[in-house]
Amino acid sequence: MEHSALVANIARLKKSVGKLSTSPATLRDALLLRIADGLERDAVALFEANHADLDEAGKAGEKVPLLKRLKFDDDKLLATCEGVRQVSRLSDPINTVTQRRMLDDGLLLEQVTFPIGVIGMIFEARPDALVQIVSLCLKSGNGIILKGGKEALRTNRALVASIRRSCADSQLGSDWLVLLESHADVDEMLGMDKDIDLLIPRGSNAFVRYVMEHTRIPVLGHADGICAMYVDQAADLDMAVACAVDSKIQYPAACNALETLLVHSAVAPIFLPLVAQAMKRNGVTIKGDERVRASIDCVAAMEDDFFTEFLALTLAVKVVDSYEEAVEHIAIHGSHHTDAIITDDVATAQRFLREVDSADVFWNCSTRFSDGFRFGLGAEVGISTAKIHARGPVGLAGLMSSKWLLRGQGQTVAQYTGPHGKKFLHRELSTDGISLAGSFEE
Amino acid sequence: MEHSALVANIARLKKSVGKLSTSPATLRDALLLRIADGLERDAVALFEANHADLDEAGKAGEKVPLLKRLKFDDDKLLATCEGVRQVSRLSDPINTVTQRRMLDDGLLLEQVTFPIGVIGMIFEARPDALVQIVSLCLKSGNGIILKGGKEALRTNRALVASIRRSCADSQLGSDWLVLLESHADVDEMLGMDKDIDLLIPRGSNAFVRYVMEHTRIPVLGHADGICAMYVDQAADLDMAVACAVDSKIQYPAACNALETLLVHSAVAPIFLPLVAQAMKRNGVTIKGDERVRASIDCVAAMEDDFFTEFLALTLAVKVVDSYEEAVEHIAIHGSHHTDAIITDDVATAQRFLREVDSADVFWNCSTRFSDGFRFGLGAEVGISTAKIHARGPVGLAGLMSSKWLLRGQGQTVAQYTGPHGKKFLHRELSTDGISLAGSFEE
Repeated sequence: MEHSALVANIARLKKSVGKLSTSPATLRDALLLRIADGLERDAVALFEANHADLDEAGKAGEKVPLLKRLKFDDDKLLATCEGVRQVSRLSDPINTVTQRRMLDDGLLLEQVTFPIGVIGMIFEARPDALVQIVSLCLKSGNGIILKGGKEALRTNRALVASIRRSCADSQLGSDWLVLLESHADVDEMLGMDKDIDLLIPRGSNAFVRYVMEHTRIPVLGHADGICAMYVDQAADLDMAVACAVDSKIQYPAACNALETLLVHSAVAPIFLPLVAQAMKRNGVTIKGDERVRASIDCVAAMEDDFFTEFLALTLAVKVVDSYEEAVEHIAIHGSHHTDAIITDDVATAQRFLREVDSADVFWNCSTRFSDGFRFGLGAEVGISTAKIHARGPVGLAGLMSSKWLLRGQGQTVAQYTGPHGKKFLHRELSTDGISLAGSFEE
Repeated sequence: MEHSALVANIARLKKSVGKLSTSPATLRDALLLRIADGLERDAVALFEANHADLDEAGKAGEKVPLLKRLKFDDDKLLATCEGVRQVSRLSDPINTVTQRRMLDDGLLLEQVTFPIGVIGMIFEARPDALVQIVSLCLKSGNGIILKGGKEALRTNRALVASIRRSCADSQLGSDWLVLLESHADVDEMLGMDKDIDLLIPRGSNAFVRYVMEHTRIPVLGHADGICAMYVDQAADLDMAVACAVDSKIQYPAACNALETLLVHSAVAPIFLPLVAQAMKRNGVTIKGDERVRASIDCVAAMEDDFFTEFLALTLAVKVVDSYEEAVEHIAIHGSHHTDAIITDDVATAQRFLREVDSADVFWNCSTRFSDGFRFGLGAEVGISTAKIHARGPVGLAGLMSSKWLLRGQGQTVAQYTGPHGKKFLHRELSTDGISLAGSFEE
């Protein structure tokens, strides 16, 4: 986009966000339903645009996984529209009271949720991700600046055109949505720390890392997902096999898939053959350290393998002599995403849940449960390994900031100052009911 | 600090933080009390060190406000130690359950609070701020890397030495606390995005802005505090005068002090003389726009004055013709810190509370209430104008991150997949009681 056009679009977006962030939920929810209907009505145009993108990507020699992500067909459209309608049914995330405290008689404090402002989303080939994030931003009252992958250029344009048509009759308009198209726009976005409040990059690890290292805008996401499972000496070994297999093979390209299996030496001689057999049956290649290879026949693991997110049917396996060695391995090699322990020993499990500093710490289940939908968050914005703002699977709450509201009757701080000053009550109140800002009505 | 010594100290700090973050509250609270006792016992040494700092600062021609902040005397020691003891009495912020959801029978999800990790604190002359942030970090299980102002070098050293002596007998030790001293250390800190999870700079606006613009570490704080008060046409004018005066003069150098007064034209002819008189009595210089000067005798305000944080007894005043003009002025000129409306009109007040996008939005009270202690947060880490993580006055909660804990009985995601897969229950449960990680006992 021309720089001057971009500046004008951002100015309009900011104005529009003011209206969006204070709009009643009924307006936003009705518009979401209209967007879903519109996408279904525009199906032919969307599929045509997508065919053109697929043709070009095919000619350019793009690989099957990319073509699969890029494809936007009847099934994807159906799932996408169902997703948008689901978002419209979620409860309004704006203006929820999260704290309420009577500072003194007639001096009432509330902390309420409020949209972050402007979200910048950079993603690769998946057109359905565009619709998902647009619907989440609309629901949460945030403006959105989107940059899609060049492979999906025509599909993205068609999707945004359809969404804009649906917005045309709404009071909310569509200025809160800006689509960027050129590759140069990515670097421009990374520098927009005055205009973008939060960046959500989706794509390869290298891409996410590039974004994180080239912007001062806060980034929601994760580069690596090097997830480990520790099979303790007190583990139910059948359970351990089932959980390890599910964690590895249920969707190997996912960030919450298992990459490293740590096995206590006391159970290694029995467990390793069991797990090796199950993995082999599922086409998984095991890379084992020396002590693993003493029990089973497998490829030799190098130290680097324990720092690797394979995203494929490969698993690094290591024997450890203690709980402590397992936890230290995870601290050094892991990416603080999702780590699990399999054990029937409650005390060891509790230590693991306390001591492992990862976004998700699991006990006796698959690492693949680390997901916004499975967690019951209603919708997933992304998975964050940051320590700030949101960590782990992030739902709509991750798109919200807050405001403090204080209603007085003319109180001054001088009245509460000095030896004879009034004292604060600081009485906690229930957060039920509508906020001091009233309800957002049409 | 030599780079190699720093690296060794950081390595020890990180190891120590693992212990601190999983330590029982009783250990941390006992250590806080011991630290307060120790500071009192070391009073003579602390005062001597402070005298030496004061002498040198005096010789260097430092101004009175700095010398005042630098001074660490009996009163400051008393207040500081009382602060530390108060922190020890706050409830434990670690491992609090913030969400609890039964995903399915035997599959229990919890979100619990967990320390952020390592906090970097850069501050100017105030030695009491050092003790405050150290006690908050200890309480919240975070490691801390401190860089104090060079003026307070000896006082800071003496304080840290006293704190370390108190830690010596505790299982927690004092490796979680690192003190940096040289100016070069600041830039080194700004580059430590692998080791520091959150930076808290305290000091001048220019200094905070420098930090924000030269690091990729998330920063908690605010550069400007350009706070506005809008006196609506439906305002109680006596209340408006009292609130404006308190907001301006109660502590003019504070970030929540009033800098801009917006007056509706319908009440300007009556209100302006009233407020001018009250401000004059309190030594405040008014800078008014043309329409203000039609009602009262004052200095002419330039456009720049409405973008200025005076931090002094100066107030920019402007007449507006509508609520909308006032809110637009605040959006363009303000710093999203604290803004207030004075009005008896509930609908207008509610619009203001909804539409003004600032950390603190107040109705019929002084802007000076924007403060962690007044808000009842127990302790104040700082005031943030960021949209991410924490906004407004920040208490201990601002030093916390979270983890998701999931306890299963061998569940796999494959069991919940496909047309015949099990369905999730997603039943919300009370967050009362101890977490899956158990209680942190000695």
